[in-house]
Amino acid sequence: MIVLFTDFGLEGPYTGQVKTVLHREAPGVPVIDLFSDAPVERPKPSAYLLAAYAEWFPPGTVVLAVIDPGVGSARAPVIVEAQGRWYVGPENGLFELVTRRAATPKTWEISWLPVTLSASFHGRDLFAPVAGRLARGELPSGPPRTAETGRCTDWPDDLPEIVYIDRYGNAITGLRAACLPSDVRLEVCGRALRRVRTFSDVPAGEAFWYANSNGLAEIAVNSGRAADALRLAIGDAVAILG
Amino acid sequence: MIVLFTDFGLEGPYTGQVKTVLHREAPGVPVIDLFSDAPVERPKPSAYLLAAYAEWFPPGTVVLAVIDPGVGSARAPVIVEAQGRWYVGPENGLFELVTRRAATPKTWEISWLPVTLSASFHGRDLFAPVAGRLARGELPSGPPRTAETGRCTDWPDDLPEIVYIDRYGNAITGLRAACLPSDVRLEVCGRALRRVRTFSDVPAGEAFWYANSNGLAEIAVNSGRAADALRLAIGDAVAILG
Amino acid sequence: MIVLFTDFGLEGPYTGQVKTVLHREAPGVPVIDLFSDAPVERPKPSAYLLAAYAEWFPPGTVVLAVIDPGVGSARAPVIVEAQGRWYVGPENGLFELVTRRAATPKTWEISWLPVTLSASFHGRDLFAPVAGRLARGELPSGPPRTAETGRCTDWPDDLPEIVYIDRYGNAITGLRAACLPSDVRLEVCGRALRRVRTFSDVPAGEAFWYANSNGLAEIAVNSGRAADALRLAIGDAVAILG
Repeated sequence: MIVLFTDFGLEGPYTGQVKTVLHREAPGVPVIDLFSDAPVERPKPSAYLLAAYAEWFPPGTVVLAVIDPGVGSARAPVIVEAQGRWYVGPENGLFELVTRRAATPKTWEISWLPVTLSASFHGRDLFAPVAGRLARGELPSGPPRTAETGRCTDWPDDLPEIVYIDRYGNAITGLRAACLPSDVRLEVCGRALRRVRTFSDVPAGEAFWYANSNGLAEIAVNSGRAADALRLAIGDAVAILG
Repeated sequence: MIVLFTDFGLEGPYTGQVKTVLHREAPGVPVIDLFSDAPVERPKPSAYLLAAYAEWFPPGTVVLAVIDPGVGSARAPVIVEAQGRWYVGPENGLFELVTRRAATPKTWEISWLPVTLSASFHGRDLFAPVAGRLARGELPSGPPRTAETGRCTDWPDDLPEIVYIDRYGNAITGLRAACLPSDVRLEVCGRALRRVRTFSDVPAGEAFWYANSNGLAEIAVNSGRAADALRLAIGDAVAILG
Repeated sequence: MIVLFTDFGLEGPYTGQVKTVLHREAPGVPVIDLFSDAPVERPKPSAYLLAAYAEWFPPGTVVLAVIDPGVGSARAPVIVEAQGRWYVGPENGLFELVTRRAATPKTWEISWLPVTLSASFHGRDLFAPVAGRLARGELPSGPPRTAETGRCTDWPDDLPEIVYIDRYGNAITGLRAACLPSDVRLEVCGRALRRVRTFSDVPAGEAFWYANSNGLAEIAVNSGRAADALRLAIGDAVAILG
């Protein structure tokens, strides 16, 4: 299975062209749109989102992950193997957390170049063919990189920020709920919110936080839109109140 | 064939995870996105939309329908069989109209529980596995429910309200055109609109109503956006002028 | 392969019904969403977009292209064969550029009518069945049209206008970059922009134009949204400064 994690959107031309390449390289392999609206051109919040959601997929999954503001510049194209899953995309921090959370992560710099490489769409021209070949079972040739380059070791293990606003207005943070004390409150925009199990545990209109279905702490309002009610945006700080 | 009718959107993580489960449970069965933007957390308008659009699909179709504001609370998960089609989702009124319009509808309460059930995403954890098993031909075990519980018998047969605004700004009502006298006018926001066959039958900019391609009365403007021009929203009342 | 080029959107009911028909008529043939947000009800800018993006697909591809403001009126439904690709849709100018750029284009007027033809959704009822039959290898019966009707011969070979705004705010023009002198500047809204290779060649916040990954001249801002910064919309004029 190939899973797409991008900021390409679905309605314009980008995802369709990527899927065309995947179909050509790995016919019959199912392609799943996980996120096509990951934080636009922002690898850091995307990295925490990716690590939390990729974990839900079985080993062997190939994740084509492209948040690539530096396309056409010097950032390296890489393949990462972490916890049995394969990741393909630009080395700009996007794979920092899946790498850090793996016991024995491996990284290969992609040296292959397509005959035609556009300056602005490596998702289609470079990363999709590589992902397709992985999905049909062709492992990287050569040994993984031994040097510890391209890492973002100064990034925290969990990101106390909003990393995604979903279509219901829920605000997902970069904090794993399992890594927080269960009675902790989270503060955003001056509002301290308590933890509950789920929406129906509070009256309509009340804000709270809870462990979402992929394990991240998420700020929500029962029968309401938290992002509007609390004026939240990607990148807003979240404070952990002991 | 499995048809999705949800308010999950396509770009965020929800539909992709549902499709991953469906692929695992019923590999090779085509999955169609019918509505992923049904009225958010509003089972009542969604129920009229679902009944009108599901009818277009052949018998044997499995419809995974999840508009589920009460997820995590006490509403029952159900399988409904109506006119040869199968429906899986929460019992909150969403299936009231497909049930009412069927000669011999049957309802099974879902007693199966997955090993892991999140508090907020039963679409992925509970309803998708059940829909996948139906799609691969496993019928519900045990007899259907005999008690008449969970019904919304006070809801009308046709809903005189706007139930959906499409991307062109057309406003779909919960009224079946075939159940209206052909010369009736519909009034919204103080404007009485006559019926025509289709857009090109009126001058550009003129508002009208017509029987849309799935049989619902729809309010539109030729070469314009009815919802903007007439300031229409889901839930707005529609009066039938004799 | 069947490629969809429409203004139907993906989340509402239209594309899902079209894909249901395609699956019924040509089971197993992959369907790619290229554009589902082509310029709404505007065949002219759509025609330049279609010609540039369809060229990327291999010969034999069937393109179902529906931008159809005149649905239900007298415009003809057609099949066009151009450079080995097949196009199915309404004859309203949408195929003018793929026809003009082909050595030996052929056009067939579609005389087939489905048993049930809605007044407003020929994409589902008429064009999708025809595209499905082409995709499973049934060629048009009878000779192509010999009369030169239905053409828009007064349209330019390249359109000096914005034809699409993508999700990053980049503004795609109807000008093929290969047909412009390499040192030309493009003027939009009183701003003259120089050409660069790609985003990372200019400082953050700077506007420029470049040849996009499908060969069209595109106006962009590094780390910014050109359409917002320069207030651009589909249809805005682009001047070529010698």
